[in-house]
Amino acid sequence: MRPVVYLIGTGPGDPGLITVRGLRALANADVVLYDHLVSSRMLRYARQDAEKIDVGSAAPQPLDQEAICYLLVEKAREGKVVARLKWGDPFVFDRGGEEALFLHEQGVIFEVVPGIPAAIGTPGYAGIPITYPDGGDTVTFVRGHEDQSITAPKIAWDALALLGGTVICYAGPQQLPEILKALLSNGFAKDEPAAIVYDGTLPTQRTVEGTLQELGSSA
Amino acid sequence: MRPVVYLIGTGPGDPGLITVRGLRALANADVVLYDHLVSSRMLRYARQDAEKIDVGSAAPQPLDQEAICYLLVEKAREGKVVARLKWGDPFVFDRGGEEALFLHEQGVIFEVVPGIPAAIGTPGYAGIPITYPDGGDTVTFVRGHEDQSITAPKIAWDALALLGGTVICYAGPQQLPEILKALLSNGFAKDEPAAIVYDGTLPTQRTVEGTLQELGSSA
Repeated sequence: MRPVVYLIGTGPGDPGLITVRGLRALANADVVLYDHLVSSRMLRYARQDAEKIDVGSAAPQPLDQEAICYLLVEKAREGKVVARLKWGDPFVFDRGGEEALFLHEQGVIFEVVPGIPAAIGTPGYAGIPITYPDGGDTVTFVRGHEDQSITAPKIAWDALALLGGTVICYAGPQQLPEILKALLSNGFAKDEPAAIVYDGTLPTQRTVEGTLQELGSSA
Repeated sequence: MRPVVYLIGTGPGDPGLITVRGLRALANADVVLYDHLVSSRMLRYARQDAEKIDVGSAAPQPLDQEAICYLLVEKAREGKVVARLKWGDPFVFDRGGEEALFLHEQGVIFEVVPGIPAAIGTPGYAGIPITYPDGGDTVTFVRGHEDQSITAPKIAWDALALLGGTVICYAGPQQLPEILKALLSNGFAKDEPAAIVYDGTLPTQRTVEGTLQELGSSA
């Protein structure tokens, strides 16, 4: 049986960062579900006659997660091939897991097409190796919050400092000072090299480099 | 100035997981450097008349890292457009950082094209969400060793257990029992859900699921 729903990671922003497999699935779809996090330039890859549905929170008629899940199933049962576009990777700090589970429960055949997470694409475009031979035996991604909460995520920052390695935090602008404070007050070295990258992989990308303390006092 | 060397992440195995941007750079290259970790099917994307050089350890004339760096510069200075293919992402547990630094020092214009790391592509193909809404606020990748050492990497496993979240270990077959032992003897719960995925994203991919203890006693 061929999949009828594709959960496609479109990468962090640059439309060239979708995979060849993702592009093929998107170009073949009868119905495309997307949201405001997905580059609008990505929709140019879709068929002109494909039905394109904005399900994001900025849509004229935003759908909640349950409604999105039901819409995927409904369109699949109409015999349509459905592409559900995701920012980054469907399984990294995203609700792709929920959608996959729901499709499985409903007996709809689906395929996950991995995407470049922002935590991978952004350092690449900024020219910052996140590991180096004989350095950086671990890489940890830290979740930001969808609701742009001003608080830092509740994780064991002190354990993260002990683990060391490379740490990549997802952060909205409001969260950034709180995350820097959490890092500095839980055992990370003040002179730890750090960078803040805005608009990762987009033409507007901007990088600020410094020590953790320098970034903390400017944020 | 247009880049002349492209450090291209080709993803973990399935040739469809290269990005559209990576594919274009590869298809345009005069010279392609690759190694045994890169799918041979990836070379079909290259021009027929492109010079294809196997620089990996399994090549008839394997090159060490320094020689690879010099070869990139040499070909660039001949006016060639060079594609250096990498397994996964160039900056994740790879030597892409060294190559980027060397190219920078030599004044050669280069571009990093991010790729899907094995730690992202493999769970996607295995249908295992590495994060879930309200669960998994961190994702940590743990380096395996290129030399297929039988020892587990020397990281603060106890801190990693305290951090929690999702942990994805790169491991050769010989390392696997040692890594499972390190996890179980440093604070990870015996009944922690776990999976071992072999040949991630390849047609031969195989997944074994169980608790950490079950996997530890079968490895």
